[in-house]
Amino acid sequence: MNTLLPVNDLFLRACRREHVERTPVWFMRQAGRYLPEYRAVRSKTDFLTLCKTPELAAEVTIQPVDLVGVDAAIIFSDILVIPEAMGMELIVEEGKGGPRFPSPLRSRTAIDALAPIDPTVSLRYVMDALRLSRERLNNRVPLIGFSGSPWTLATYMVEGRGSKSFRYIKELIFSHPADAHALLAKLADAVAAYLSAQIDAGAQTVQLFDTWGGILAQEEFEEFSLRYIRQVVQAVKPKGVPVIVFCKDCGHSLDRIASTGADVVGLDWAMDIGDARRVVGDRVALQGNLDPTMLFSTPERIELGVKRILEKFGKGSGHIFNLGHGILPETPVENVKAFITAVKTHSVQYHV
Amino acid sequence: MNTLLPVNDLFLRACRREHVERTPVWFMRQAGRYLPEYRAVRSKTDFLTLCKTPELAAEVTIQPVDLVGVDAAIIFSDILVIPEAMGMELIVEEGKGGPRFPSPLRSRTAIDALAPIDPTVSLRYVMDALRLSRERLNNRVPLIGFSGSPWTLATYMVEGRGSKSFRYIKELIFSHPADAHALLAKLADAVAAYLSAQIDAGAQTVQLFDTWGGILAQEEFEEFSLRYIRQVVQAVKPKGVPVIVFCKDCGHSLDRIASTGADVVGLDWAMDIGDARRVVGDRVALQGNLDPTMLFSTPERIELGVKRILEKFGKGSGHIFNLGHGILPETPVENVKAFITAVKTHSVQYHV
Repeated sequence: MNTLLPVNDLFLRACRREHVERTPVWFMRQAGRYLPEYRAVRSKTDFLTLCKTPELAAEVTIQPVDLVGVDAAIIFSDILVIPEAMGMELIVEEGKGGPRFPSPLRSRTAIDALAPIDPTVSLRYVMDALRLSRERLNNRVPLIGFSGSPWTLATYMVEGRGSKSFRYIKELIFSHPADAHALLAKLADAVAAYLSAQIDAGAQTVQLFDTWGGILAQEEFEEFSLRYIRQVVQAVKPKGVPVIVFCKDCGHSLDRIASTGADVVGLDWAMDIGDARRVVGDRVALQGNLDPTMLFSTPERIELGVKRILEKFGKGSGHIFNLGHGILPETPVENVKAFITAVKTHSVQYHV
Repeated sequence: MNTLLPVNDLFLRACRREHVERTPVWFMRQAGRYLPEYRAVRSKTDFLTLCKTPELAAEVTIQPVDLVGVDAAIIFSDILVIPEAMGMELIVEEGKGGPRFPSPLRSRTAIDALAPIDPTVSLRYVMDALRLSRERLNNRVPLIGFSGSPWTLATYMVEGRGSKSFRYIKELIFSHPADAHALLAKLADAVAAYLSAQIDAGAQTVQLFDTWGGILAQEEFEEFSLRYIRQVVQAVKPKGVPVIVFCKDCGHSLDRIASTGADVVGLDWAMDIGDARRVVGDRVALQGNLDPTMLFSTPERIELGVKRILEKFGKGSGHIFNLGHGILPETPVENVKAFITAVKTHSVQYHV
């Protein structure tokens, strides 16, 4: 593995709130269906096979660097590979409402039966994909690794699939909190080991996705999600790469998220990034936060949206431009390019 | 119509932040499927027929007053009756993902073709249901009328049904803001007329539901949702009954919601009601905010949840206990009763 700094290290410098010449930009799910080149790869292979074939995973990981000019790559994978590695059957069928676990976790026995993982063995395909991606990136831009947060993984594992009411995971925390904590503790260990292994395999930053933190009241968010995020961050920090924490719909707890030890806090689009900067002060950098649906509008409107966010964040480093959630599959590529050009052009004045 | 004060006027006094002997309690969707008595009525008639048959609508409106002892009734209806009255075909099929508009609004021509409504004519069935409900309640508890907010109605009308990405309504506001404002202005007029007619027909409080305010960034929430909520509140206020505004997932704008002229602000369960009280001060009363999924746990856990919220709100009037969103259809009735008993019992000490 090449350990030199990337030629374009804007992203890494912004994570550490060091001076940059312009605001770096990448976006969640950037290796994805909005790209015809990604769809071409996918037309020949199913989603999970793509995740598990390092050669192909590396290919789609690098596509957005070459095609739209982002300042960082993020490894192509899925957050649900951890539960699968722990022994749960995972099914991903196209157009059938996303991934699902046909036998969701619904008992303490099932929780206790989950196997601890050695990610260098059972998730070796992710490590191989990281190594290959680093090789092929050839230090052009840094490579990001990621994982779902313990809470978000638990939610999927207990519900079995996406949900509107989340009644099963809520039943677990309200009626059987000790079982919930047993599950979350196992997951925190697995996530910490997984992220550490990713760093060893070449990830130059890692991001935790807490997609479902926002379904909890503040108090339960602290008890069942943030506590385990903190644990993972603290376990991974000694590895010395920046850690990003992204909790969706958790604006109420921004102050506490900024105190987990994370280097960067990701914002969804609901929050005003200027307000957020006032809350977090100089504890962390901020990442975000354009509404992904704005990319369905016109290049002019997107440019305006980008300018407003840059203005709200204001002068100085510590901002990584991103969307407020993953890019949507039907997004027009020309609008993605307009978004990136707008960030690269209009951010310069905030760093003089 | 009987204009005497209800015998149990705790709810109305709490709306006005006057002294009460205990915290009043009701809950969103309280006339609904968790009640066997409601399911018995529904087994003989479909949802829209139930909405449009005043005799039956009044019957299910009163059920929770008799069966679980809430301190207010809310008229049984659906927020989508306004778009239907404006000329859109509305379909509600059981178990097929909720109500939908088979021909969603997707052009300025379609927006301009929407007919203004005279709610006393086209929504007369709602007014008749209100009159009948008042008659049968016989002043035991007050009766609440309601409407969707202009933004929430627009979202359903443009998307055609529930959505994950909301790309069509977002495309409208980002690419064709003038068209969006034309639609929202029409809806604000319709909603104001509708709520005023409900008050004339006997509603003693009205609530605006902004279910989809939370899909907007703060800035767009102000421009496309809150602005029209303010307009409706100001139009309805001279009628002299309390106005409740409930915006889901809009904690970031609580301060501004409290300044719309509303008497009461409804909170979803994400926000800490103690923090919320500090933000709103004595401008408004607060309504909420137990996580509806907590009702799937045990009576003991529910009691604890209720006690925590009462403690967070603290001493004094201006709190109406409610869930943070509508009750879920599978909720056990015994847990609903435990919830109500807990509020009635434990709130007394906060009002001495």
